[in-house]
Amino acid sequence: MGRLSDLFAPETVAVVGATDREGAVGRAILENLQGDFAGEVIPINPNRDEVLGLECYQDVKSAPPIDLALIVVPPSVVIDAIEDVARAGTDDVVVITAGFSETGGEGAERERRLREIAAEYDLNVVGPNSLGVMSTPVEMNATFGPENALEGSISFMSQSGAFITAVLDWANEQGIGFQDVVSLGNKTVLDETDFVREWGDDPETDVIIGYLEDIDDGQGFLQAARDVTDDTPIVLVKSGRTDAGAQAASSHTGAIAGSERAYEAGLEQAGVIRATSVQQLFDYARALSGLPEPDTDGVAVVTNAGGPGVLTTDAVGDSTLEMANFTDETIDELAAAMPDEANVYNPIDAIGDADVERFREALDIALDDPNVGSAVVVSAPTAVLKYDKLAEVVIEKREEYEKPVVTCLMGGDRARAAEEVLREFGIPNYFDPSRAVAGLGALAQYRDVRERTIDEPTEFDVDRERAREILSRARNRDDNRLGVESMDLLEAYGIPTPTGEIVDDPDRARDVAESIEGDVVMKIVSPDISHKSDIGGVKVGVSDEDVYDAYEDVVARARNYQPDATILGVQVQEMLDIDESTETIVGMNRDPQFGPLLLFGLGGIFVEILEDTSVRVAPLGEGEAREMVDEIKAAPLLRGARGREPADVEAVVETIQRLSQLVTDFPSILELDVNPLVAGPDGVQAIDLRLTVDTEEL
Amino acid sequence: MGRLSDLFAPETVAVVGATDREGAVGRAILENLQGDFAGEVIPINPNRDEVLGLECYQDVKSAPPIDLALIVVPPSVVIDAIEDVARAGTDDVVVITAGFSETGGEGAERERRLREIAAEYDLNVVGPNSLGVMSTPVEMNATFGPENALEGSISFMSQSGAFITAVLDWANEQGIGFQDVVSLGNKTVLDETDFVREWGDDPETDVIIGYLEDIDDGQGFLQAARDVTDDTPIVLVKSGRTDAGAQAASSHTGAIAGSERAYEAGLEQAGVIRATSVQQLFDYARALSGLPEPDTDGVAVVTNAGGPGVLTTDAVGDSTLEMANFTDETIDELAAAMPDEANVYNPIDAIGDADVERFREALDIALDDPNVGSAVVVSAPTAVLKYDKLAEVVIEKREEYEKPVVTCLMGGDRARAAEEVLREFGIPNYFDPSRAVAGLGALAQYRDVRERTIDEPTEFDVDRERAREILSRARNRDDNRLGVESMDLLEAYGIPTPTGEIVDDPDRARDVAESIEGDVVMKIVSPDISHKSDIGGVKVGVSDEDVYDAYEDVVARARNYQPDATILGVQVQEMLDIDESTETIVGMNRDPQFGPLLLFGLGGIFVEILEDTSVRVAPLGEGEAREMVDEIKAAPLLRGARGREPADVEAVVETIQRLSQLVTDFPSILELDVNPLVAGPDGVQAIDLRLTVDTEEL
Repeated sequence: MGRLSDLFAPETVAVVGATDREGAVGRAILENLQGDFAGEVIPINPNRDEVLGLECYQDVKSAPPIDLALIVVPPSVVIDAIEDVARAGTDDVVVITAGFSETGGEGAERERRLREIAAEYDLNVVGPNSLGVMSTPVEMNATFGPENALEGSISFMSQSGAFITAVLDWANEQGIGFQDVVSLGNKTVLDETDFVREWGDDPETDVIIGYLEDIDDGQGFLQAARDVTDDTPIVLVKSGRTDAGAQAASSHTGAIAGSERAYEAGLEQAGVIRATSVQQLFDYARALSGLPEPDTDGVAVVTNAGGPGVLTTDAVGDSTLEMANFTDETIDELAAAMPDEANVYNPIDAIGDADVERFREALDIALDDPNVGSAVVVSAPTAVLKYDKLAEVVIEKREEYEKPVVTCLMGGDRARAAEEVLREFGIPNYFDPSRAVAGLGALAQYRDVRERTIDEPTEFDVDRERAREILSRARNRDDNRLGVESMDLLEAYGIPTPTGEIVDDPDRARDVAESIEGDVVMKIVSPDISHKSDIGGVKVGVSDEDVYDAYEDVVARARNYQPDATILGVQVQEMLDIDESTETIVGMNRDPQFGPLLLFGLGGIFVEILEDTSVRVAPLGEGEAREMVDEIKAAPLLRGARGREPADVEAVVETIQRLSQLVTDFPSILELDVNPLVAGPDGVQAIDLRLTVDTEEL
Repeated sequence: MGRLSDLFAPETVAVVGATDREGAVGRAILENLQGDFAGEVIPINPNRDEVLGLECYQDVKSAPPIDLALIVVPPSVVIDAIEDVARAGTDDVVVITAGFSETGGEGAERERRLREIAAEYDLNVVGPNSLGVMSTPVEMNATFGPENALEGSISFMSQSGAFITAVLDWANEQGIGFQDVVSLGNKTVLDETDFVREWGDDPETDVIIGYLEDIDDGQGFLQAARDVTDDTPIVLVKSGRTDAGAQAASSHTGAIAGSERAYEAGLEQAGVIRATSVQQLFDYARALSGLPEPDTDGVAVVTNAGGPGVLTTDAVGDSTLEMANFTDETIDELAAAMPDEANVYNPIDAIGDADVERFREALDIALDDPNVGSAVVVSAPTAVLKYDKLAEVVIEKREEYEKPVVTCLMGGDRARAAEEVLREFGIPNYFDPSRAVAGLGALAQYRDVRERTIDEPTEFDVDRERAREILSRARNRDDNRLGVESMDLLEAYGIPTPTGEIVDDPDRARDVAESIEGDVVMKIVSPDISHKSDIGGVKVGVSDEDVYDAYEDVVARARNYQPDATILGVQVQEMLDIDESTETIVGMNRDPQFGPLLLFGLGGIFVEILEDTSVRVAPLGEGEAREMVDEIKAAPLLRGARGREPADVEAVVETIQRLSQLVTDFPSILELDVNPLVAGPDGVQAIDLRLTVDTEEL
């Protein structure tokens, strides 16, 4: 058990603010604790000698030693109450009381104090504004909710207490059990990262699930989840996925939601399996808590009903799984065992008169096939098929072959008893074939999470000092936008840029142009002018003799466009042969939760109109950088589709990593765009750069 | 009632092949009919005088008049049995017996005979290989399934009998009722189109739902569904959506599945609401059978629980609906009525201590807002909230404001009673907020179906005779592929093509080039060479003096590439200024079920790599042609994104319609590709053409 063990397995629990007043939270929580909890329950209330038949103590000092303190006193005295329990030697506290940062003003100040005091005494604090905690192994219900949880191997955290009460009643009905349950409340001290680590160390927790509206420390969570998912799957509903939802979440908890794209990337990189609805959350959790992961993606479908078999096959087609391709041997065995009318190809249709024995044979043959990683048993109710017997067969074959099997025993009442038997052996029964297949899909997703190797970010040999010096120009200039004049920043990090120079007189421009082979490109350099082309601030294919006039012209146009613009000069740059090249973009912005978020896409319409981009949280290793390139839809264009010469994809992958290192080394870089990064057959060149820096941070 | 009324409301039903043998279908069906069915049940069996207490007749002749005959005799005597009942004056027959086309060989021959006999006597035949039919108003269960249906307003057809048995048990538990239920079986005579028409005329059917594996006559179904959906929504699960599923469906029913894209387009054009799972099918059906359509897309969410409120908001964000923007008046009223801690912006969080009265006020104020078209009531169980009372409030407000309201009363057991009350008043309760919102989404989708106007295809003035003559060239040539040499086919249908000519000697080539202003494009014309550019068979920007040599070169390259290729000549064509233009593609292929399927997209990578295309079943009107253009992701490129001059989109839309007319007029055109159709600011030009014709059909 981890450092939070006293939260979930205390021997003594105090309710500070216990009362017998009807309808009071301090009574509800005491009543819940008085259930089957084996530990000692200690009511604390200066005005009572006894509450609900328990001896009540005036204060913490006079009470026996307290492992876990539940605080239900009014908000104004919460801090004092916590200080009391801390002084008395208690490390673990759950603050049920609401009225903290979620109410603003005074509440926010109280929350600040709570944070201070927790740090001072090194307290584990859940809440404030929490429904409480539960732990089924010790039969502790330290919440004021109306329901107890059944025992099971799922540990469950929720940023919404109502979500817990809403779900428990239903979960009990479904026979879904839990190990620990935590209502996170305002997450002032302990948050999702702490519980992920705690449950990751808990051998009794098979699956961690959560409902979250935000993640406090994206990078910390990502690291914790990566560590934990080697052994324990994590399934999360992260709400506020949509713009409307994010707005609602922020008015609900006062949380500043990061961007959905950052969450999507960050959670995926963390190895978290994401659910988008309550039903999905538990559909996945049921599969993950009771079944092994499939070795291979091939699914066998065994059914007595053609239509539902086809529906199941469609669901497999929709998923990341695939219909298993049976070996010839399997087909022969099935043909021998099944009646003539049966379909022995996958889905196996054992037809309407199939009894339990025929299901047993079909399942036995199918699971023995090396191409089968998992199976779905789908049945329509018939007179000859006994669901309870079928459940036994499914359990037997699942265990014999050590492969995951889920069921979809269709029908209402008549499936109930079988469902219960299956559940005991970890096999979820789903009403709908698509949900059954999605359950198997979650298992396969978790297998991939376990099997993946996250490579450490490569440490490139870069000139960090030079980069620091270039970034500090922004402060000297009192302008937080840097542009093409800072291309040497990219050079310092080993990213190729075209030959060239920024000059501030036309003669020098000509000298530079003459030193460059062929024609040149000339661009106005000004932090105040962002769409240089539109105002005539860019000239392409300028010959040496035209450079002087082009300089004058470009500067004149810029002045004309914006008389007070700061003009840093004119860039004279080698002109690249871009016929055989592809324009790409690598960008970065900082997400409030996850930090640096890298974006990759092809330039122009691909990003702006088709929105064909990939994102990852930095820092990242080579594998993730390559995924960024491969996952855009237009990737084949880089790889040489339609007779083009393939671009040097490895150079693109390396550039993404070098930029990852740059933005990780310098948190002062708030936004960055290398646009375009031209990728040709022989490498890449960064043509233009824009970045915003935090001048305070430099 | 329609022409099939005797199927669903017969006064006398005969079971031909009735028996009292345990386990026999002929017994099961008789037992089901003996339930509460008010009509007369007539067993027919030459070997019995009495079956299950009913007088049994030797044959049909000696029996009383029969409205509906159920055939359960062995396959070999089915045809004779049908002929007997037809001669005795029965028009309506359900063939339960299996062993027809699904078994191939002899069975297929029997099915052919069945079709003949049905035509001869003008019979309405359901099946063969059918589970039977049900009609709850007359309490008739003429199936051999284990379950009766509850009464309701949903009429249900299924191509899988097992799907019916699998669903009914569950539906009964959920309290979902049906009007008529039909197991379609092999659909030899009556198919989905017949039942859509029948139920479209039935005032007691509020929603038509179905499970289908194929649609026999796509164009006929499309027309029937368009007619019916003005009054009655249709929700279908069409399985075989995925490649794997299509394969499974075809081995299940022997149906040749058309392409999923054709189904997708055809069903959408038909106004059918499509579900992808059993759960969705009934989630949608429940909403559509009990609630009116929303006038506007704004959804109000009323909850006592922040977390579930945010989840619901996310579900709205995922849907085609939107969170209603409350008027200032609504906000003020809510602020006055709700406690300070409540959130009065949408979602309305009436907070955890909300009782039924607070829900009533919130719902009253929200539904009164003109921006609110529908509402979701989402609640977590609390001590102060009585679900049964809440149900009454929801029913009252829903009826008062005549707007659709759905609920998500979370929790298991404690929601049951409320759920039943709500159901009686047509209000579906869903466990998961995302399903509740999807239910409202189906209502909005149906509103859009009702409100849309399908314009008739424009009849352009074309030269049909000339087109026929051009197509007949294929037969004369004994080659079913036509190419650029048939560009005059497009001209005959009023589609612009560049000036030019196909020539077969270099002198003539020069003459043609000289008659064209500017340089020309030259292309080899050969049905045997499809990638002309790749073999050097295309020359762009040829000046008049180079034409002679270019002719020789192009022909030589073609000969070199394929010595025995048929070379029809060389096309000499005006060279278009394509800098300001966009290449598009309009294609057509024939789907086995839906007929001509038109495809539109931008050329090159947009179609080949990004797969950014739209499809519609032809013939189509202007509105649908315009949708094809607008729905591709790259549409902004045509409409002038990124500073480009907008293309003449109207000319593109017109070309799609003219091609629709062409492929409708000539079913002999099996495939057609106009690629590219260049769209510029001043119109379009078809540059190249390939088509395949059915030379038998010409």
